[in-house]
Amino acid sequence: MTKFDEATAAIRVDETTYDVCLDTGYSIGGPLNGGYLMAVLLRAVVDASPHEHPVTTGVQFLRAARPGPAQVRLEQVKTGRTATMTRATLVQDGESFIEGLVTTATLGDAVPDWTDEPSVAMPPIEECVSLPAPKTESNMTLNAQMELVFDPPTIGWLDGRPTGRPEARAYFRLAEPQDPDPYVLALAVDALPPVVFSAGGRGWAPTVDLTWHLRALPAPGWLTLIGGGRLISDGWFDEDVEVWDSAGRLVAQSRQLARVGRG
Amino acid sequence: MTKFDEATAAIRVDETTYDVCLDTGYSIGGPLNGGYLMAVLLRAVVDASPHEHPVTTGVQFLRAARPGPAQVRLEQVKTGRTATMTRATLVQDGESFIEGLVTTATLGDAVPDWTDEPSVAMPPIEECVSLPAPKTESNMTLNAQMELVFDPPTIGWLDGRPTGRPEARAYFRLAEPQDPDPYVLALAVDALPPVVFSAGGRGWAPTVDLTWHLRALPAPGWLTLIGGGRLISDGWFDEDVEVWDSAGRLVAQSRQLARVGRG
Repeated sequence: MTKFDEATAAIRVDETTYDVCLDTGYSIGGPLNGGYLMAVLLRAVVDASPHEHPVTTGVQFLRAARPGPAQVRLEQVKTGRTATMTRATLVQDGESFIEGLVTTATLGDAVPDWTDEPSVAMPPIEECVSLPAPKTESNMTLNAQMELVFDPPTIGWLDGRPTGRPEARAYFRLAEPQDPDPYVLALAVDALPPVVFSAGGRGWAPTVDLTWHLRALPAPGWLTLIGGGRLISDGWFDEDVEVWDSAGRLVAQSRQLARVGRG
Repeated sequence: MTKFDEATAAIRVDETTYDVCLDTGYSIGGPLNGGYLMAVLLRAVVDASPHEHPVTTGVQFLRAARPGPAQVRLEQVKTGRTATMTRATLVQDGESFIEGLVTTATLGDAVPDWTDEPSVAMPPIEECVSLPAPKTESNMTLNAQMELVFDPPTIGWLDGRPTGRPEARAYFRLAEPQDPDPYVLALAVDALPPVVFSAGGRGWAPTVDLTWHLRALPAPGWLTLIGGGRLISDGWFDEDVEVWDSAGRLVAQSRQLARVGRG
């Protein structure tokens, strides 16, 4: 069992309740990363479903969850031959932290009937750059769990050279070798720095809604994350992330609506 | 009160229950249009919220709803100064038909800090084409409620000339004159023919998840709907719709994951 599999484990109490222990290793400055929390939620949803894969997941974040024991509460609102729809809630200390709607189904490995190209071409990984190693006393513990190798201009904001538009692009894999699966993808769709940073935004940018679709089971190897946005206005921004696998397949699509940080 | 406002009215029974009457005028061959049903749901959510606008809405469709009496059941899971999050369920004959998560807030009319251009340029409306008028005995009654004027190539599939890629673009307004508002936008984001039709797909394409974000309050006049998709595979397709208002502002963004029809 990998560290990630352990950190996202959900233990069945009964058909509607799972115990989880939120891992301190996925902190982004105190609060836990939303993608990590989705992965935990999805472990419970899929375990309770007759179907194998979380095909579409929509979550809204109420409060910033902290490391420690929590529960996932499930309500299967419909089970059919091809899909099961489940309401899932992450509860900590009796309070609801994340509300989710998940449709599970079982994906095959069909050849796509039609597929678009990546919206932006990535340079080869040798021409990309990693973030400086997190300081040991850093509470950005998430950085130690994964490798992100960035398309250089999209990380220019770190040195005071933002591109002026919302974007972030990187190659991604877990630090501990593990083939990507739907739970790794749940982490991947929320693994990039907020795209507003590249447009001059700063500070904690809380996600309100994150919806993502699993489009295919990923091949082993690096994932490519292509993040962008369309509008920053009135304190809100959208972040779109498409995830391509090493075989060149679009495996996940996500969009989140988030608040611009106050720097 | 316009026909659309009447058809989407939600009457408060108590703080968690609203009575609605699903209007036969929004049928797409029997089932009711998903955007119309979202508008009904949102009337109840916003009425019960201290905030004015449905900023982000995620719904999953369990069953095809039919015209007639129904109820919207609400659970406010969090109310804060800037936003309220509500679980909303559309119930008919004691069964749940739509499950939704909605965050309401109050939008201002801020000048965008950053905005992208429309992803595809539309030809002027004079160069666009309307659908043939629906046959009087048609059960596509939705077509009578709105005007769609299409970018010609994207409706070529009607004459056996699909473009070969998932796309649909049109100017949109309600048939009965009414300035667009967030409820009209809820209808607009699901008003185009399925984008797979332009890629050769056919038949009833049931939506599983539809998530949309209200980005600004729309100016009076025509709306521009730009629909596309990234992948058609394994019986699933994604449909992205961006809605621009007559002032050239991005006012709504939606993405749905749906099943490809069996023709």
